[in-house]
Amino acid sequence: MNNSSTLKIKDIGEQGLLKIIQSFCPADIIGDDAAVLKTTPEKSLIVTTDMLVDGVHFSNTTTSPEDAGWRAAAANLSDLAAMGAFPLGITVGLGLPGDLSVTWVEKLYQGITECLQKYNVPIVGGDIVRSPITTLSITAFGEANPNLIIRRSTAQVGDKIVVTGVHGASRAGLELLLNPQIGENLKTEEKTALIAVHQRPRPRLDVISILKQMLPYPSPITGMDSSDGLADAVLQICRASQVGAILEQSKIPIPSTFKHWLTPERSLNYVLYGGEDFELVLCLPPQTATALVEKLGTNAAIIGEITPGSQIILKHENAKIPDQVLTLNQGFQHFNQ
Amino acid sequence: MNNSSTLKIKDIGEQGLLKIIQSFCPADIIGDDAAVLKTTPEKSLIVTTDMLVDGVHFSNTTTSPEDAGWRAAAANLSDLAAMGAFPLGITVGLGLPGDLSVTWVEKLYQGITECLQKYNVPIVGGDIVRSPITTLSITAFGEANPNLIIRRSTAQVGDKIVVTGVHGASRAGLELLLNPQIGENLKTEEKTALIAVHQRPRPRLDVISILKQMLPYPSPITGMDSSDGLADAVLQICRASQVGAILEQSKIPIPSTFKHWLTPERSLNYVLYGGEDFELVLCLPPQTATALVEKLGTNAAIIGEITPGSQIILKHENAKIPDQVLTLNQGFQHFNQ
Repeated sequence: MNNSSTLKIKDIGEQGLLKIIQSFCPADIIGDDAAVLKTTPEKSLIVTTDMLVDGVHFSNTTTSPEDAGWRAAAANLSDLAAMGAFPLGITVGLGLPGDLSVTWVEKLYQGITECLQKYNVPIVGGDIVRSPITTLSITAFGEANPNLIIRRSTAQVGDKIVVTGVHGASRAGLELLLNPQIGENLKTEEKTALIAVHQRPRPRLDVISILKQMLPYPSPITGMDSSDGLADAVLQICRASQVGAILEQSKIPIPSTFKHWLTPERSLNYVLYGGEDFELVLCLPPQTATALVEKLGTNAAIIGEITPGSQIILKHENAKIPDQVLTLNQGFQHFNQ
Repeated sequence: MNNSSTLKIKDIGEQGLLKIIQSFCPADIIGDDAAVLKTTPEKSLIVTTDMLVDGVHFSNTTTSPEDAGWRAAAANLSDLAAMGAFPLGITVGLGLPGDLSVTWVEKLYQGITECLQKYNVPIVGGDIVRSPITTLSITAFGEANPNLIIRRSTAQVGDKIVVTGVHGASRAGLELLLNPQIGENLKTEEKTALIAVHQRPRPRLDVISILKQMLPYPSPITGMDSSDGLADAVLQICRASQVGAILEQSKIPIPSTFKHWLTPERSLNYVLYGGEDFELVLCLPPQTATALVEKLGTNAAIIGEITPGSQIILKHENAKIPDQVLTLNQGFQHFNQ
């Protein structure tokens, strides 16, 4: 008997659950990193929310409370950047067990505010409640010029695909944290730098400031952040825009140290699927793409192009390696793990 | 050794925790039901957030998922009404155990949207994550005319204290739900009506519409909602405004059925401390107070007056009963229960 009264969350997974929940929401505000509400003709309000649960999204064994706080704040600010919005403030909801140490909470807030202060963003409210499991819920809201909102669904055939920085570093940093014995070919400062990318990621709000200076645009800006991985970002954009893409592997910026300790296969895996780099993946007309990459400097690059069709093809520099078709990995099915 | 490294959350309680957290937030946005951000000269953005945990704030044994959803949405909309704001939208964060039924989630969203639809408020975003305990985090945002924002800290000596409806009904409804054998003097429809107040509370956004029509005001509007009880609301306003108050017990509107089944002591207890009635408690100059009560109709009333000093005194109709000084009850110390 598999009807809805006996079905459990783990039976339908996150995608199944999202479909049900979306039936309760207005159709036009679904599918991007954050919601858009047009409050005045010149400004839209952008809202995004993230919930983080101890043991699922962070853990005292691998993440200090300061880093958990920083990462949670950074992820929400990155969701705003992914929409082309500048942050106005965040609210922090906290569920806390009674026997949690007060110091842990102070350190969490310290990490949150350290990240927010870099971007002059205030904590404007929140809620604290008793809970058997430490739970953190952050809602960030920002504002954007309605003509400057970045969406996933507007990519055009012929657009160049831009990344605003290297990919794979966060995942490499996590591996070095989990397995301190690996990466023996790396210098201490090289290890530290990769670990820092994982612990203290930077939302690319600076890219939004640069885009704003580049006005006016010849077309809407398409894109999202790469928090769930570079491959995921390209796939989500192509799916929402009903287009395909060709990516050139050799053009994707990666940390210079990868060649010293990672096989080409592992390096590519981190770059495409590692996630949490919080860079922006943007689709822009060729001239705008070139201008943006010039302004952003060394680590930004054009890595490919939007094509007709629906396939996302990764081309290798070495013509002997066959082209690879990218597919979504298992990252979404959190509930049936 | 009672230093902060060994202190636990349960040792310092919610008030202690709030003090620590407030040190991380801008000083001027603390103390009301929601945060205020001035986005344009004519509009302010108002944001409020609530976290609800299974077994702490709701329970399948006393609350259906539809009612849990309705109540959560209503509480957030009431926080916006308490600030004089009209809602723009809410986000819903959900932490869910894998073995929770899909039907439960559908019914929760049904309750949330049933409440929201009454006020034309959309769900504009959210997050769903795996969690060992069902957790609901709602953030509501609204907008208000900066001159119409209701605050707790602006009560003036001589202001009349207005309640927008009866108090005690929600608590009475909860008691009838928990103990179906009580209230035997009540008709079935009288019981049903009290239970409905508990299960489906109404945020008083209609009062904000009426206040808006009454512009211009001679002074700022002071007030909050009575979600934590009528006594709590008066006490919070007096504390924030550094004033006292006299309340006349006989003027406080209560459900007409209370006299049939509750002792005067129990009735007064429900009225003052029951909570979750989601009415507004407003302090206004006498003329404005009278005009508002006339517009609101039967259940609204002037129940007292703001006085110098800091005491809140409850006067009884029967002069033989001595005046009572109100104090905050234990409602806030959730963590050390």
